[in-house]
Amino acid sequence: MSISVIGNGNVAFSLIPALIKANYTIDFLVGRNLEHLQPLASQYDISFTNDYNLIESEIVIITVSDNAIETVSSHLTAKSNKLVLHTAGSVSLDILTKNHSSCGVLYPLQTFSKTRPIDIGTVPLCIEGSGKTELAIIQNLAQNLSSSVTQISSSERLSIHTAAVFVSNFTNLMYTYGAKIMEDTGLDFNILRPLIQETAQKVMQLSPAEAQTGPALRNDTNTLMLHNKQLNEAFTKKYNTLTAWIQEFYNK
Amino acid sequence: MSISVIGNGNVAFSLIPALIKANYTIDFLVGRNLEHLQPLASQYDISFTNDYNLIESEIVIITVSDNAIETVSSHLTAKSNKLVLHTAGSVSLDILTKNHSSCGVLYPLQTFSKTRPIDIGTVPLCIEGSGKTELAIIQNLAQNLSSSVTQISSSERLSIHTAAVFVSNFTNLMYTYGAKIMEDTGLDFNILRPLIQETAQKVMQLSPAEAQTGPALRNDTNTLMLHNKQLNEAFTKKYNTLTAWIQEFYNK
Repeated sequence: MSISVIGNGNVAFSLIPALIKANYTIDFLVGRNLEHLQPLASQYDISFTNDYNLIESEIVIITVSDNAIETVSSHLTAKSNKLVLHTAGSVSLDILTKNHSSCGVLYPLQTFSKTRPIDIGTVPLCIEGSGKTELAIIQNLAQNLSSSVTQISSSERLSIHTAAVFVSNFTNLMYTYGAKIMEDTGLDFNILRPLIQETAQKVMQLSPAEAQTGPALRNDTNTLMLHNKQLNEAFTKKYNTLTAWIQEFYNK
Repeated sequence: MSISVIGNGNVAFSLIPALIKANYTIDFLVGRNLEHLQPLASQYDISFTNDYNLIESEIVIITVSDNAIETVSSHLTAKSNKLVLHTAGSVSLDILTKNHSSCGVLYPLQTFSKTRPIDIGTVPLCIEGSGKTELAIIQNLAQNLSSSVTQISSSERLSIHTAAVFVSNFTNLMYTYGAKIMEDTGLDFNILRPLIQETAQKVMQLSPAEAQTGPALRNDTNTLMLHNKQLNEAFTKKYNTLTAWIQEFYNK
């Protein structure tokens, strides 16, 4: 099946090589700004255009930012019965059904950045289709890209996306605080890295609740007090809030 | 040099095989409860005792819980000029200098659990000594165990330990919340695991500030609103607090 990809953001950067690896033909990389499309298109020798009317692929994958999906989808003509997909975690399928009878979602549950290419083969793909036929096509596409494919409704996908914010964005905030405390003390963040890695690695086998340790869980008041003394006021507040949340969760 | 280890907790479980691998002789595994010592001692064919007076090793490593270190160290007679070390992140060296002229700290900066043996060889060891001679001995010991050894004062170590609470205990709380949201939606936590791993992996190269992404950072009010609607009241509060913290950090 022939595919066009709209957008040249972080998702497109990892999705395009995955599609090529799975032997799909990419007709066009599409976007407003040709200059921005050029690097990715050249890298994989793909045609690129800013003219939505040229798109006649069987599948069109919209990878633009959440807020732009609706506008972009309205630019696509429905004449050729294209299957139109978006790749966003928190955008309902309804956004596409307005303009396209044949549509769906291919949401790769991962954090993407242009500096770190992601192997889609191990990324969980959450799929949704406007009908049985569409779902079958999307399932086939997804299974050619990744070993982990799950059918997920728009509402479930929104829940997954909020859970993802906790385990990724908010987790990274905790790393940021750790880095700031090290910096403020004139110490190298580097020596925290093995701990960060092992903390993540632990929950690959255990549940997070089984993996929880530390002074908050033990209600080790002496250590909690020492940490409070050591931190500046802004961090003390955050430390105590997070400690209270742990104790609330475990009914300490 | 001959070594005795006091305590049979999580640190001892990873430290003892590391000492043996580095060709140290372990005279005794020491603790109050012989039954509790037996499994670890048998596994490595080490003598074990509950009689502190039998300890005549050149180095004694106290691996008991923070609150018990002072009491345990007071049980050790100083007659044989033993070098007494503890392995705790938030306990000052002063606790040992009260009873021992020759003492120090060997703090392995990692999360230990009996179910996951840790290779000490890659664990950052933070060392401190009561004097130059002691520090030289501890440095030698540490370098035989790990490729990452740093001299750290008691005050710096306490800062590192608070930073460690953020990147490990509080990070794991974020995983717990992710798991709870998935459970509440009837979804499998498993599909979040690759994201958790990549989020940690990202900051092995980037700084956490460089790695930050998400709706809070972008101040994507539409997505923030959708997440608020999807979460229950308890989680909404936490979500909004953490979002505000990200926006505070990046001056959004």
